[in-house]
Amino acid sequence: MSVLEYVAKRSPAVEGVLRRLLSGTEPGELREASLHLVKAGGKRLRPCLTLACCEVVGGRAEGALETAAALELLHTFSLIHDDIMDHSPLRRGVRTVHRIWGEPMAILAGDALFAKVFEALSLNASRIGMDGRRTAELFRLVSRASFELSQGQALDLLLSRRLNLTEEEYVRMVSLKTGALMRACASAGALLGGGTPSQVRRLGRYGENLGIAFQIQDDILGLVGEKEEMGKPVGSDLREGKRTLVVCLALRRLRGEERRKLLGVLGRPAGKGEVEEVVSLLVRRGIVEEARKRAREFSERARRELGGFPRSEALSFLEELADFVIERRV
Amino acid sequence: MSVLEYVAKRSPAVEGVLRRLLSGTEPGELREASLHLVKAGGKRLRPCLTLACCEVVGGRAEGALETAAALELLHTFSLIHDDIMDHSPLRRGVRTVHRIWGEPMAILAGDALFAKVFEALSLNASRIGMDGRRTAELFRLVSRASFELSQGQALDLLLSRRLNLTEEEYVRMVSLKTGALMRACASAGALLGGGTPSQVRRLGRYGENLGIAFQIQDDILGLVGEKEEMGKPVGSDLREGKRTLVVCLALRRLRGEERRKLLGVLGRPAGKGEVEEVVSLLVRRGIVEEARKRAREFSERARRELGGFPRSEALSFLEELADFVIERRV
Repeated sequence: MSVLEYVAKRSPAVEGVLRRLLSGTEPGELREASLHLVKAGGKRLRPCLTLACCEVVGGRAEGALETAAALELLHTFSLIHDDIMDHSPLRRGVRTVHRIWGEPMAILAGDALFAKVFEALSLNASRIGMDGRRTAELFRLVSRASFELSQGQALDLLLSRRLNLTEEEYVRMVSLKTGALMRACASAGALLGGGTPSQVRRLGRYGENLGIAFQIQDDILGLVGEKEEMGKPVGSDLREGKRTLVVCLALRRLRGEERRKLLGVLGRPAGKGEVEEVVSLLVRRGIVEEARKRAREFSERARRELGGFPRSEALSFLEELADFVIERRV
Repeated sequence: MSVLEYVAKRSPAVEGVLRRLLSGTEPGELREASLHLVKAGGKRLRPCLTLACCEVVGGRAEGALETAAALELLHTFSLIHDDIMDHSPLRRGVRTVHRIWGEPMAILAGDALFAKVFEALSLNASRIGMDGRRTAELFRLVSRASFELSQGQALDLLLSRRLNLTEEEYVRMVSLKTGALMRACASAGALLGGGTPSQVRRLGRYGENLGIAFQIQDDILGLVGEKEEMGKPVGSDLREGKRTLVVCLALRRLRGEERRKLLGVLGRPAGKGEVEEVVSLLVRRGIVEEARKRAREFSERARRELGGFPRSEALSFLEELADFVIERRV
C-alpha cells in the first residue's frame, strides 16, 4: 500500500478528532488562530505514522486516534512558534498565524495547542482503559519529545551564528528538532497497540531516523524545490542563515571565492540572483548530492528497524514512507 | 500553622525537584533562560497548595512532590510568555527572560518548561504506582488547566480593547487566567493523596475561588502597592490598559471629567503624575475598596469548601491561605 493510499484511508478519522478537540474553544479568535494551520492542510504523515505503528504490532488503528491527532497538534504548535521566531510570512501556502492575529495571539494559539496535546492523550488512555504503567509511559514519551523539540530549536537558533559546525552537531540538532517528534509518533503508536518494550524501542528508532532523513530532504527542498509546491519562498533558509546539512557541508568544503559567495548570502538580505548563483554552486560542487546521500543513509537505518514485523498494509506503509520522505518534492 | 511556616517547611523539597528537573538541559542558554525566573524566587504558594491538598485528604506530601514542582513550572512558563506579550521589562525584581535572552529563546524557554510539566507528572505517577484511571485523570486536570490558562490570557488580550466589559466577563477571564491553575494545584494534590471524587472537586473549587481572590488582590497591588515589594513598576497595569477589576468597576462608575482622566492614562504612555492622580481618584471614589470587598467574597467562598476536613497543619495552611491571598502586600 502506497504512502498516499494509506494516508487517504486513515487520515479522515484523524481530521475528525482534530476538529472536535478544538471546535468548542472560546474566545473565537483563539479558536481560529489555533485551527488556522490545522485547516491549511499538511501531509498528516505524523498521525499516520502513529496509526501504522499501532497496527504493525497488532493493535487496531482506531485505538490510537486521539494520540495520532495529539501528535499532529504538537507538530502544529511547534510550527506556529517557529514561524514567530523566524519571522516567516508564509506556511503551507497561507499567511502565518502571527501575521494574521499578531504575535501575542500566535504565542497563545501555540500554547493552547500544546495543552490540547496532553488532554487528547488522556482522553485516549481513558477511552481504551490503559493501565497506569502504560499511561504514564505514553505521557513520558510525548513530554520528552516535546522537551527535545524545544532543545532542538534552541540549538538551531544558536548554531545559526556559527561558521564551524560539524556534521555531528547538525545531526544532533535535527534529531532533537525533527527526529524526537517522529520517534514519539512511532513509539506512542506501538505502545497503544500493545507492542512489547522491544517493539516500542525499535519503532521509536525507526521514527527517529525517518525524522532525520525527512529533515535533510526538507533542507534540500528549501534550496532546490519549487516555491509553489513548498508554500514558502525558496532560498529563504539561506537568507535566514539556517544551518541546514547543505550549509554545514558547504562551510566545510568551499574555499576562497566560493566560500565568500556563500557567506555573502548566508543570513543576509541577499538578492534573488545572488541566492540562485549560490544554489547552483552548491549543486555543481556535489554538495546537494552529498546531502541526499546522507538522507538515504538515515532512511536505510530506519528501514532496517522494520525487519521481523509480519507483512501487513501498515508495514508496507512504513517501508514506503522511508523512501517517500527522501524522494518527495513537497 | 501560618502560611509562611508551612511554605518554609515544605518548599525546600520542591526546590530540589525543580532544580533536578531542569539541571541537565542542553544547550546551556536554554537551561539558564528556563531556570531564570525559577531561581528569582516567587512565593511557591502553588506547589504548597498541591502538597497541602494531598495531606488534607490523608496522603503524604512526599507523594505529590513532582506534581507540586510541575505546577510551579506551569506557572513559570505562563509568566515567561506573558512577559513577552506584555513587553514587560521586570518580573520578581529581575529582568524578564526575553529582555536577557531575546524573544525567540524566551518563547522556547517557556515551551521547554511546559514540556517538563508533563514529564514531571509522569515521573510522579510512575513513582507512586498510580492506576491508569487516576493517572489519566491527573493529566486531564493539568492539561485542561493549561488550556484554560491560554484561554484566559487570550480573553485578557481581547478585553483590553473594550470599554464596556461587565464584572461577569472580568470574573470569567480571571477564573481562566488564574483560577484554573490554582484549581489544578488543589485537585491534583487531592487526587494524588487518594481523595474521593467529591473531595477532589471540593478542593478544586477551593483553589479556583482562591485564585480569583488572589488575582483581584494582585490587580489592587498593581495600583496601590510599593514598587520595591512588587518587583515591577506600580501603575504599569493602567498604562498597559489591562482590564483589572478596579478598571472594570471604574469604567462603569466614573462619569464626565473623572472618566476622561481615567481614559487619559488607560493604555497610554501617561506620566507618573497623571497615573498617581487617577489612582488617588480610584481610592477616593471607593472603587479600590469595592474591589477588596469582591476579593473577600471569593476568599470566603474558598474557605467554605474546607468544612468537614479533619483538623491538621495542612488544613490550617489552607484556611490561612484564603486570608493571606487577600491581605498580602506582595
